[in-house]
Amino acid sequence: MGQYIAPLRDMQFVLHELLNVESELKQLPKHADVDADIINQILEEGGKFTSEVLFPLNHSGDREGCHHDKTNHTVTTPKGFKEAYKQYVEAGWPALSCDPDFGGQGLPLVVNNSFYEMMNSANQAWTMYPGLSHGAYECIHEHGTDEQKSLYLPKLISGEWTGTMCLTEPHCGTDLGMLRSKAEPQADGTYKINGAKIFISAGEHDMSDNIVHLVLARLPGAPEGSKGISLFIVPKFLPNADGTNGARNPIFCGAIEEKMGIHGNSTCQMNLDGATGWLIGGPHKGLNAMFVFMNAARLGVGMQGLGLTEVAYQNALVYAKDRIQMRSLSGPKAPEKPADPIIVHADVRRMLLTAKAYAEGARAFCSYVALQLDKELNHPDEQVRKDCADEVALLTPVIKAFITDNAWTATSECLQVYGGHGFIAEWGMEQYVRDARINMIYEGTNTVQSLDLLGRKILMDNGAKLRKFGAKVQAFVEANGTNEAMSEFVTPLAELGDKVTKLTMEIGMKAFQNPDEVGAAAVPYLRVVGHMVYSYFFAQMAKIALEKEASGDTFYKAKLATARFYFARLYPETAMLIRQARSGSANLLSLEADLF
Amino acid sequence: MGQYIAPLRDMQFVLHELLNVESELKQLPKHADVDADIINQILEEGGKFTSEVLFPLNHSGDREGCHHDKTNHTVTTPKGFKEAYKQYVEAGWPALSCDPDFGGQGLPLVVNNSFYEMMNSANQAWTMYPGLSHGAYECIHEHGTDEQKSLYLPKLISGEWTGTMCLTEPHCGTDLGMLRSKAEPQADGTYKINGAKIFISAGEHDMSDNIVHLVLARLPGAPEGSKGISLFIVPKFLPNADGTNGARNPIFCGAIEEKMGIHGNSTCQMNLDGATGWLIGGPHKGLNAMFVFMNAARLGVGMQGLGLTEVAYQNALVYAKDRIQMRSLSGPKAPEKPADPIIVHADVRRMLLTAKAYAEGARAFCSYVALQLDKELNHPDEQVRKDCADEVALLTPVIKAFITDNAWTATSECLQVYGGHGFIAEWGMEQYVRDARINMIYEGTNTVQSLDLLGRKILMDNGAKLRKFGAKVQAFVEANGTNEAMSEFVTPLAELGDKVTKLTMEIGMKAFQNPDEVGAAAVPYLRVVGHMVYSYFFAQMAKIALEKEASGDTFYKAKLATARFYFARLYPETAMLIRQARSGSANLLSLEADLF
Repeated sequence: MGQYIAPLRDMQFVLHELLNVESELKQLPKHADVDADIINQILEEGGKFTSEVLFPLNHSGDREGCHHDKTNHTVTTPKGFKEAYKQYVEAGWPALSCDPDFGGQGLPLVVNNSFYEMMNSANQAWTMYPGLSHGAYECIHEHGTDEQKSLYLPKLISGEWTGTMCLTEPHCGTDLGMLRSKAEPQADGTYKINGAKIFISAGEHDMSDNIVHLVLARLPGAPEGSKGISLFIVPKFLPNADGTNGARNPIFCGAIEEKMGIHGNSTCQMNLDGATGWLIGGPHKGLNAMFVFMNAARLGVGMQGLGLTEVAYQNALVYAKDRIQMRSLSGPKAPEKPADPIIVHADVRRMLLTAKAYAEGARAFCSYVALQLDKELNHPDEQVRKDCADEVALLTPVIKAFITDNAWTATSECLQVYGGHGFIAEWGMEQYVRDARINMIYEGTNTVQSLDLLGRKILMDNGAKLRKFGAKVQAFVEANGTNEAMSEFVTPLAELGDKVTKLTMEIGMKAFQNPDEVGAAAVPYLRVVGHMVYSYFFAQMAKIALEKEASGDTFYKAKLATARFYFARLYPETAMLIRQARSGSANLLSLEADLF
Repeated sequence: MGQYIAPLRDMQFVLHELLNVESELKQLPKHADVDADIINQILEEGGKFTSEVLFPLNHSGDREGCHHDKTNHTVTTPKGFKEAYKQYVEAGWPALSCDPDFGGQGLPLVVNNSFYEMMNSANQAWTMYPGLSHGAYECIHEHGTDEQKSLYLPKLISGEWTGTMCLTEPHCGTDLGMLRSKAEPQADGTYKINGAKIFISAGEHDMSDNIVHLVLARLPGAPEGSKGISLFIVPKFLPNADGTNGARNPIFCGAIEEKMGIHGNSTCQMNLDGATGWLIGGPHKGLNAMFVFMNAARLGVGMQGLGLTEVAYQNALVYAKDRIQMRSLSGPKAPEKPADPIIVHADVRRMLLTAKAYAEGARAFCSYVALQLDKELNHPDEQVRKDCADEVALLTPVIKAFITDNAWTATSECLQVYGGHGFIAEWGMEQYVRDARINMIYEGTNTVQSLDLLGRKILMDNGAKLRKFGAKVQAFVEANGTNEAMSEFVTPLAELGDKVTKLTMEIGMKAFQNPDEVGAAAVPYLRVVGHMVYSYFFAQMAKIALEKEASGDTFYKAKLATARFYFARLYPETAMLIRQARSGSANLLSLEADLF
């Protein structure tokens, strides 16, 4: 049933050799004492927990799924999920990066991030339960009143309670402005909420004592559209003042969805029949408050893509070394066997290296952004905080869309390595593909991410955020442009940087005359930016590998090979994408809808 | 639960306006009296049968799957499958393109082909049962003795019996040379066959009276490898001389596989415990005989990709017109509604048009190749037959791999149109994606197809077959190069033709020094050729549409828009593919396997 071994060496390479996390954290008073040893120890423990506790439940969780009892409105998670969650709580994992004022361990997000990669590799469906709780924690931490914080945060941090986000309704997903759920103010300062929500991940389950739902709804007389939406805390059980569970709140699971993947996670239809809620973040400011949650969630979804890419790669690699079939085109490589292991075949390697490069690129990228987030939150210099915030804002949609699209490609290539066996459930590969598919959809479809990047994050400030990131790329190019050994990496990076600048200006000019040009270019445009980011990180990683190759540590040899593969085989996608992005809106919009 | 309406107008456009099938068939004595009316009547009836009988069983068949009774070795197909098959047989559909000497209707393959597109759109899992029978029919028709023909063909043609192909074993899929099943000659001229086969589609089921297995096995003392494999007819029930069923032959289903998709089709492990078989195609000539079956099957798999692309497109289109969400970036298009239908959004159109263009390109391509196959089999002029055979040989791997890869992309894009609903089983879209995944694997993985195209079909004859096809492209370019209205289509076609020529020569030269260069280039190379083929057909279709646009029939306007979309948005993939194909083998093969 496959394997998962946390890629500790590559994680350490990224954190310590590429990002110099220890010295970066020294600049942040809150994290100044987090050294490499502490980080490595956490990663090692995380690797054990995820491999030994979560991974063994991944395939069985997929086959079994969740069970809904309609009479009692209860949902039972797959065998072992509840027990694994208990272990997770007892080990203190939920508290890792949470605020010490409320019982957290206060470790940096960049460490938590690596742990989430492992959890997602081991079991994405399971990881969504604590993952959503962490989002709820962040939202209440940022927008809650002191009372709300002291009531909810300790329980979310300990993991005794979990959280959800209840946004989507049957008629509105992307377009939350059409939301219909209603909140009626009560004399005691609470609200009675009525409405029907769908696609609520982890909406009901048996893993925690209470579930803290964050629910979007409209107040009476609220403005129409997205400016009239408020956010409410709606716990499954009304908490008593001492934190124990009081009465059952009428927010019930009406059904769970049958879906393509992540079967181990309960995707619930939630009905609110006069459920009691508490306003959070001010009247009509719901979307604003929810965006904290959504931005965290978008980074989290990128990590899901990375996690699946890594685990699919690991398993395809084992299979490719083990399975013998045909001889190498250039003659037998294992003459003692009746056929060669399929890893000798060039195209099998193309598939494996696609996954390997996408995993290593994503790992560098996500860890970098997580570190920028730590700096945004904790750096003493306001300008640094501002710069980091800009970079995180710019790169969040790229993380979400680029990594999850790549994970779809990579998991599918890894399935293909298995030939017919890849299609058979028993081998586990097809589950990774099915699980990967949702990541391109939820927390804002990848089209929405692309519009967010191009429309909001880039064109709306005339490219200021992009230029700041571009200046980093440019500085690297200039610093390494005369290093001959680096030219195979620096040249394509420099070329792509220039092309992104030109392309952005061109689309900006066209969009000025016709806003549809943004929608027509956004999806290929985001992928071009994604490749610029990966080119930047692969060039940096190649530089380190070149410097350390002579050490004899073969890790660096492999890293160089992966970087070369990236530029030879994945980077060329930009030649297609730029043509697509430049092709304009007429090829999409000129045909009348009824002639389709 | 969705819809399927046979795309009769586009099928008729391809057959009558693009391919002039009626006048082409007039040159073939066997089909000289098949006119457009007959063809249209068959298509119409086929459309009814597939929409009304097969499509309603597609989703339920997926949810229910097949059931294996281990004690009795029986397999029960999903509810309704058996009854639908009865209707199919009673209507005479299995006989459509079969030999009249054995009860067939003798219609051309190009007509049967369109019918198969419809069946695959409506229900790929169901269609595999008769689809494999048709392959068995072709194999016995070509290689069987007179006795075998008269015993088996009438039953396969009537549909009373179905067929399978039993190639794969647990340790060998692509590498049939490692096959271990054994056939012992008996005194009566039959053989006792022992072995274990896996992945046998439609291997056991309850739809027909008997199942005719075509089984690969080794004779005693056979040469090692693929030159020592023989083919045997192994019926489930030994037929009496009068065609009734005799004794049960010990070829039993040991298990059915749980798999990612095509749940309605029984994928069987088949155990042969001294099963009686009859040699077909001569000792050690098994692969040769099986190739007839496999080539038919490869075209069939391409049609599965086309079928899924079409039905996914139709449903995504309905949804995109119906679902309202957000306003167009260029201002409200349906101001009377609370939001615009999502088809106004440029990127939703990109997704829809991707599927539409891939469906229409594949339809033209497959129908063309089916017509060449009719000519290969029936044209009075030997040179024409030879030329057509060359073209079919060249294009078969392109049909199989290019169309199924595109179907994976297209069905996934159509799923994405639905947002979160696309991931939910109830809407039916995720089934199309899951079903589409197998088509890239079976009947030779798409990597194997690419190696077949580049290695066997092109480099082995120094590009002679490719040059013949290229001459047709060139002739079209020259005939239309001065037509200004056509330049937007002819220019990219001409450019790509030149690039294919150069790329082929370059890879050929490199392969001369290092055979691994073929494996390193094959997969992107096949897709480049695929785009050359699609460019050729879209340019031809655009020409017709330009000529008839003034008629006011909006079909031509839509066709032109699709062709323009193809060249603007899909054709640019060639810029990436050519770079990948040229990048050589070192980026894949230089890293030692144990450093991965």
